[in-house]
Amino acid sequence: MSDIKPSIHTCLSPALLHLYPVQGSVVVIIDILRATSTITTALQNGAEAVIPVKEVEECVKMGTALKAITAGERDGQVAPGLQYGNSPFEYDEDFIKDKTLVLTTTNGTKLLHMALQMQADQIVIGSFCNVDALCTYLLSLKKNIILGCAAWKDKVNIEDTLFAGAVLHQLKNEFSVQCDASQIAATLYEVAKDDMYAFMKAKNASHYHRLTNYGLTKDIQYCLKPNTCNVVPVYKDGKLNAAT
Amino acid sequence: MSDIKPSIHTCLSPALLHLYPVQGSVVVIIDILRATSTITTALQNGAEAVIPVKEVEECVKMGTALKAITAGERDGQVAPGLQYGNSPFEYDEDFIKDKTLVLTTTNGTKLLHMALQMQADQIVIGSFCNVDALCTYLLSLKKNIILGCAAWKDKVNIEDTLFAGAVLHQLKNEFSVQCDASQIAATLYEVAKDDMYAFMKAKNASHYHRLTNYGLTKDIQYCLKPNTCNVVPVYKDGKLNAAT
Repeated sequence: MSDIKPSIHTCLSPALLHLYPVQGSVVVIIDILRATSTITTALQNGAEAVIPVKEVEECVKMGTALKAITAGERDGQVAPGLQYGNSPFEYDEDFIKDKTLVLTTTNGTKLLHMALQMQADQIVIGSFCNVDALCTYLLSLKKNIILGCAAWKDKVNIEDTLFAGAVLHQLKNEFSVQCDASQIAATLYEVAKDDMYAFMKAKNASHYHRLTNYGLTKDIQYCLKPNTCNVVPVYKDGKLNAAT
Repeated sequence: MSDIKPSIHTCLSPALLHLYPVQGSVVVIIDILRATSTITTALQNGAEAVIPVKEVEECVKMGTALKAITAGERDGQVAPGLQYGNSPFEYDEDFIKDKTLVLTTTNGTKLLHMALQMQADQIVIGSFCNVDALCTYLLSLKKNIILGCAAWKDKVNIEDTLFAGAVLHQLKNEFSVQCDASQIAATLYEVAKDDMYAFMKAKNASHYHRLTNYGLTKDIQYCLKPNTCNVVPVYKDGKLNAAT
């Protein structure tokens, strides 16, 4: 008799999260361009913690209270009142080591708070930057997993779906996959994996289009590159820290 | 200067429909296994009209009032109080010609009523059975289109996504496609198109699994076969009729 494998599901949009067994599951927050890539990079480079918040105002208040760095963008520009932007390139070791970063993001933070409210067992951050480290970590937990795509204002996007596919590519044999969205994500990844940037460009992905218009091609390339980091950010008591 | 092309969007679940510009658009209802395939087949075989209703009770009442055939299944069995099931094989010409069919379906009818409430310009039925006829019809309208997947209790499914991809495969050059879900659907279809049944089986699609358990392999094969019909069912005043 084989052991019963834990399940893995893919939720393609926050608007679908209620359909999945969030309570007691590990939820992976996926917001590839660029929130979860930047969070992973900042922690890799020695940030003390990253605090994700939804609104600019809350970001300013918390930054002042904690004497922390505040960051966030709206429409491709640093939001008024904040100090830094959403690019992973802003958070190198010289700058971010031992500092706390309060980051306002819309889609990723919204999904994280939803998962929290629905009593996820654990919330972790996924990005191509840390895909191998994440998969090793998820395997070690032996719990049910939900791959949660942050999407864009609830609309399904290519890059978050691709990342869910990348995780499934590594974990599918160790988990029970009974979810059409997972199969769709895994198929997409198989098609795109040899050159995800070219795939995003060829498909004129909405976010590729948006960020390219802001001159952020370099950011996209970085965010699609696997394993530049080996940390797994875990959410606890309002903060993201590297799993130990 | 080229003319501005109408847009085409893919909505992967009824729970996402509010994100799309439904008002004034043509909405294609897609519920491949098996509602939209069966509706198309019944009209192809000469049914006077098909009336889609959500509840079994409503189906019984309307069937009595109109002296119509009533049909619908719950959990793979003809629902108590109704006469026939959801299989396209039940509606051959000898049986259905000149008759009205009141059909209760859950996912497809729900989506249809949502599109109606959101003031779609026109609601049409799509299935592999009529894919070429549908695409020709959509091209002739020169209007914005939303490919609406009925999904399964709001969960994204493979077969409806595949069908959206099949339509995009035919129409993408004639429409403006600025929607990641459309690109995902089109990519899935490109991978699966040479043998969609084998793809569904290999991916253990949730609906493939469900219907196979009910012994309905033949239904799945029929519902994935392109162009057995040349009618386009159009919804008007509560009824579906073949477009003239």
